[in-house]
Amino acid sequence: MYCQGFALAFACALVKGAAAVKTKNFIYIVPDGYGISSQVLARDFYSITNGEGTVARPNTAALGVDNIVIGSVKTQASDNLVTDSAASGTAFAAGIKTYNGAISVNDDGLPVASVLEAAYLDGLKTGLVVTSRITHATPAVYSAHVLHRDSENEIAAQQIGKAHPFGRFVDILIGGGRQQYLPTSEGGARDDGVNLINWAIEKGYTYAADKSDFTEVQTEGKLPLPFLGLFTSSHLTYEVDRDIEKEPSLLETTKAAVDTLEDAVKDSDKGYFLMVEASRIDHAAHSNDATSHLHEILVFNEVMHYLKEYVDAHPDTQILSAADHECGGLTLIDGYDPTSLAKGQSSGENAARALEAYNGNDPASLLRDTILPGMGLSKYTDGTVESLVRKHASSGSEAVGRDLVERFAAEAGINWSTGGHSAADVVLHGYAGESQAELRKEIGGFRDNTELPQYVAKSLGLDLAAATQKLRSNGTEWVQKRSMLTEIKKRANEAARAHSHESWLH
Amino acid sequence: MYCQGFALAFACALVKGAAAVKTKNFIYIVPDGYGISSQVLARDFYSITNGEGTVARPNTAALGVDNIVIGSVKTQASDNLVTDSAASGTAFAAGIKTYNGAISVNDDGLPVASVLEAAYLDGLKTGLVVTSRITHATPAVYSAHVLHRDSENEIAAQQIGKAHPFGRFVDILIGGGRQQYLPTSEGGARDDGVNLINWAIEKGYTYAADKSDFTEVQTEGKLPLPFLGLFTSSHLTYEVDRDIEKEPSLLETTKAAVDTLEDAVKDSDKGYFLMVEASRIDHAAHSNDATSHLHEILVFNEVMHYLKEYVDAHPDTQILSAADHECGGLTLIDGYDPTSLAKGQSSGENAARALEAYNGNDPASLLRDTILPGMGLSKYTDGTVESLVRKHASSGSEAVGRDLVERFAAEAGINWSTGGHSAADVVLHGYAGESQAELRKEIGGFRDNTELPQYVAKSLGLDLAAATQKLRSNGTEWVQKRSMLTEIKKRANEAARAHSHESWLH
Repeated sequence: MYCQGFALAFACALVKGAAAVKTKNFIYIVPDGYGISSQVLARDFYSITNGEGTVARPNTAALGVDNIVIGSVKTQASDNLVTDSAASGTAFAAGIKTYNGAISVNDDGLPVASVLEAAYLDGLKTGLVVTSRITHATPAVYSAHVLHRDSENEIAAQQIGKAHPFGRFVDILIGGGRQQYLPTSEGGARDDGVNLINWAIEKGYTYAADKSDFTEVQTEGKLPLPFLGLFTSSHLTYEVDRDIEKEPSLLETTKAAVDTLEDAVKDSDKGYFLMVEASRIDHAAHSNDATSHLHEILVFNEVMHYLKEYVDAHPDTQILSAADHECGGLTLIDGYDPTSLAKGQSSGENAARALEAYNGNDPASLLRDTILPGMGLSKYTDGTVESLVRKHASSGSEAVGRDLVERFAAEAGINWSTGGHSAADVVLHGYAGESQAELRKEIGGFRDNTELPQYVAKSLGLDLAAATQKLRSNGTEWVQKRSMLTEIKKRANEAARAHSHESWLH
Repeated sequence: MYCQGFALAFACALVKGAAAVKTKNFIYIVPDGYGISSQVLARDFYSITNGEGTVARPNTAALGVDNIVIGSVKTQASDNLVTDSAASGTAFAAGIKTYNGAISVNDDGLPVASVLEAAYLDGLKTGLVVTSRITHATPAVYSAHVLHRDSENEIAAQQIGKAHPFGRFVDILIGGGRQQYLPTSEGGARDDGVNLINWAIEKGYTYAADKSDFTEVQTEGKLPLPFLGLFTSSHLTYEVDRDIEKEPSLLETTKAAVDTLEDAVKDSDKGYFLMVEASRIDHAAHSNDATSHLHEILVFNEVMHYLKEYVDAHPDTQILSAADHECGGLTLIDGYDPTSLAKGQSSGENAARALEAYNGNDPASLLRDTILPGMGLSKYTDGTVESLVRKHASSGSEAVGRDLVERFAAEAGINWSTGGHSAADVVLHGYAGESQAELRKEIGGFRDNTELPQYVAKSLGLDLAAATQKLRSNGTEWVQKRSMLTEIKKRANEAARAHSHESWLH
C-alpha cells in the first residue's frame, strides 16, 4: 500500500509498520502534563546551577530524556481537540481514541484491554508505579474500566482484583491514594464499607504504608510479590516538599519495582510490563507552580537516565515515553532566569498548608520568616506582607499560596498561559539499546498516541484484541451503567475545563 | 570515547557521529518562528476544514512535515537563552554559537563560513529562496558577514558579490527587499548611491521585479542563472493577502529554484545547496496574527510535501528542516476552534494599510463593510465599530489593526503568550528517501542547532573550516568595525526584545 497525498492518514503508518523489535520486558513512562518548554526549563536550570553555563552563556548539557528523543505525538481526544489524561491515557494504554474522562472504555462505554492486561494474560509480570493517587487517570487506564475517571473507588476495587474479571492481575501497585482503599469509617473515601487494603493482604499482597515499611519489606532491594504500596491518603507529596524519611522518591520506587520484576522473571521466557508515571508534573503546571514543576521534571529525567542505563545493561528491555498532553502553556521568554528557580524550596500548596495549619495570631511573621523565604521570594516589601495577610483573612490560605506562585513566576520571568491543558504535540522518547535504529524506524517520527501501545504489544508479542475479547467474555455490566454515558461525556469536558481549579487543600 | 553521566556534553554526539549519508544535493528549509503548536493549529485547521473531523471529533490527517519528524533542536544564543534569528541562523548555517544579532560572525566578530559558501567553493550551485527581505537575518547568515543584522545594505552588497571576497557566489536569490538594492534617489534605502540591481545585471544576473517578469524569464520552468528576483521593496506579502497576479508563492519560487538547480547540475558530479525560508511565520507570530500565521504555515507544509516527493524522485537529494526558534508562545487551550480561522481572509497589517490609505470621511463604513468581514470577525456590535473609529483617530491605523488581530484570536479561542521569541526546543524534520534510517541515526534525536550544518557539510563532502580560512585569507577588515562589537552586542539584545514592536506600516 502506497501512502500519498498532502494529508496522510495515520492508518498508512500502521499498514506500513512492520515487525517491532521483539523484547522480553517493556517499561512505559508517562511524564503527565509535560510540554516541550518544561524540558527546556529543567535543562537550563540543571546545567546552569551545575556551572555549565550562565543565563548569558549557553550550557552544553543534555538531561536524561534529551538523549533519547525519537519523535513527537499527537494527543487529542475523540470529542475534544484538547485531551485530558483519561482519554489520552486510554489511547496509549489501550490503543483507541475515546472521550475525555473515559478510563479504558470506548466511545460506547465498552471496556478495551490495556497492554498491561494483555501482558498479564500472556503470563508476564506487571507493575504500576506513580506519584499521584494510584486510582488517578493514568494508572487507572492500565488497570480498570469505568465510564468516568472520578469513579476512583471503583477503580481501586478493579485494579486490586476484587471487581475485575481477571481477579488479581497487577503484581506491583505503588503510589498514593489510600483514601480510595479505605472505608469512610477508617478515614478513607469508600462508602461501601470495604477495606481494600485488608482484602489485598488476605489475597496475598504485602502492603507498605510508608517509606520505612517500603524499605523493611525488601530483601536485597527486591519487594515481595504481589506488592501494594500506598504512602499517602491522596497524591504523593511534591518532590520539592517530600520528607525523605517518610516517602520514597519516584526514582527509588522505580528502581525497586524494576529490580523486583527483573528478579521475578529471571528464570522465565516471559518478562514484565511496567508503567511508571511522573504524575505531578501536570499538577504543578495546573497550579502554575514553577518550583514544583521543575523538581518533578528533574526526577522524571533522573528516572529516564536510570532506565536508559538499565536498558544498556539489560538488552531484553525497551522503554518508551511520552506525555499525555502539555499543561500550563509554559512560555520562556527573553529575560527568564532559571537560576532564580534555585531559591524555591517549597510548593505553593505546601505554603498554603503551612498557613492553614497556623494557629498563632501573627501570620505576618510566619509569612516573613518562613513562607516567603521558603517560596524563594526576595522582591517583596512590608506592603506585600500586609496585602498577603489581608488576602489570607478575606480569601483563605489557598488564595495566598496561589498568589505566591504567581509572584515567584514573575520574579523568574516565567510565563504560564493557562491553568489547563493545551493541544500541543508532545515529544516522544524511546530507547532499545543496540536495537535503537529499529525502534526509531518502527515507532519514531510523528505518531498518534493510539499507535504507541500497538508497538508495545507487537514487541512483547501481545494480542490486544484477544485481551479485549476476554475482558468482555462474561458480559460488560461490571463496567458501570452505560445509560448514563451521554450525560457523563457532557459533564466530563466541563469537569476537564474546571480541573485547573481543583483545590490544593482538600 | 564513551559518553556518560546525567548530563551529556553535545561534543559527545559529534564525536560519536559517524559518516553521514553522502548526497549530491541538499535543501535546507527554515520555518522561521515556528513552534510545536503552530503545526497543531495548521493540522487541525486543514483536516477539519477538509472534512476530516470536527472540533468534537478528531481528525486523522497529517500535514507535510508530520511525515518526516526526526527529533528536536535546542536554539539558544551564546549570550541569551532566548535566541534571535541571526544567532540561531548563524548556528545552523555556519555551525557556531554566537551572540544575538550576529550574521555569520563569531563572538569576536570574525567571519565564519556558511555551508552555502563552502558549497560554492566546492563547485556546487547555490540558492536562497525566502519570503522576507532577501537581506533579512536568515538568508543573510548564508551569504554575508556583518556584526549586526540591521546592516542590511551591507548584507545586500555582500550577498550579490560586490563586497564579498568570493565575488559572486549565490546563483539564485529570490525574495523581497528591493529597498536594500536601490539608492535613496531611486526609492531605495542605500545611502551610498549604488544601484545593486543594475550592478548585478551588469555582472550577468537576470533580474525579475514581479511575477510576470519571473514567469517570462523562465524556459520550460527553469530560470536563467545567475538569477535575482526581488518582488517587493520590503518583505513579500503575507500569503493570505498575496495578489497571485503580482507575486509568486513560496511553493512556486521553490519549485522554480529546484528545477533550475537540478537542471544546472544534471551533467556534473557536483550538485547544489539551496536554502528555502518560510520567513513570515515569525512575523505573523510577533504580531499575534493567527490568520497570517496559519496561512504561512500551510504554505510551508505544502513546500515540505513537495520537497519530500522531490527527494523520492531524486534519491541524490536530502532535506533537513528546523525552525530557528519558537515565536509567540502560541497556546491552544480547550475551546479553541480552528474552523473559525476559515473566516479570516486578511492579515492585521493589511487591514491597517487599508485604513491608512483611506481618504474618505466615513471610516465606520469602511470598517463595517470591508475590514471587519475581511478579518473574519463576526462577534461585534455598533459599539465595537465606534470604539475602533475612536482608536483610529487617537492612535492610528496600526493600533486598529493590532486590536483586530487580538479580537480575532479571542473569537477563535487562540492564546498568544508573547510578542517575542521563546526558548522552546523546535521540531527537527528530515528526509533522505531510502537512506532515511541513516539520516535518523546521524542527525535525528535531540540536537543543538550548531550540529545541523555539520551534517549538511558531511553529507555534501564540504570543509567548513577550510571555507572559513579562505574567507579570512585576505584579512577580515571587510566585515566591519570590530571596535564597535561590545556596544553592538549590548544593543542587539535590546533590539531583539523590541523586535515585536516593529512597525507594520513602514
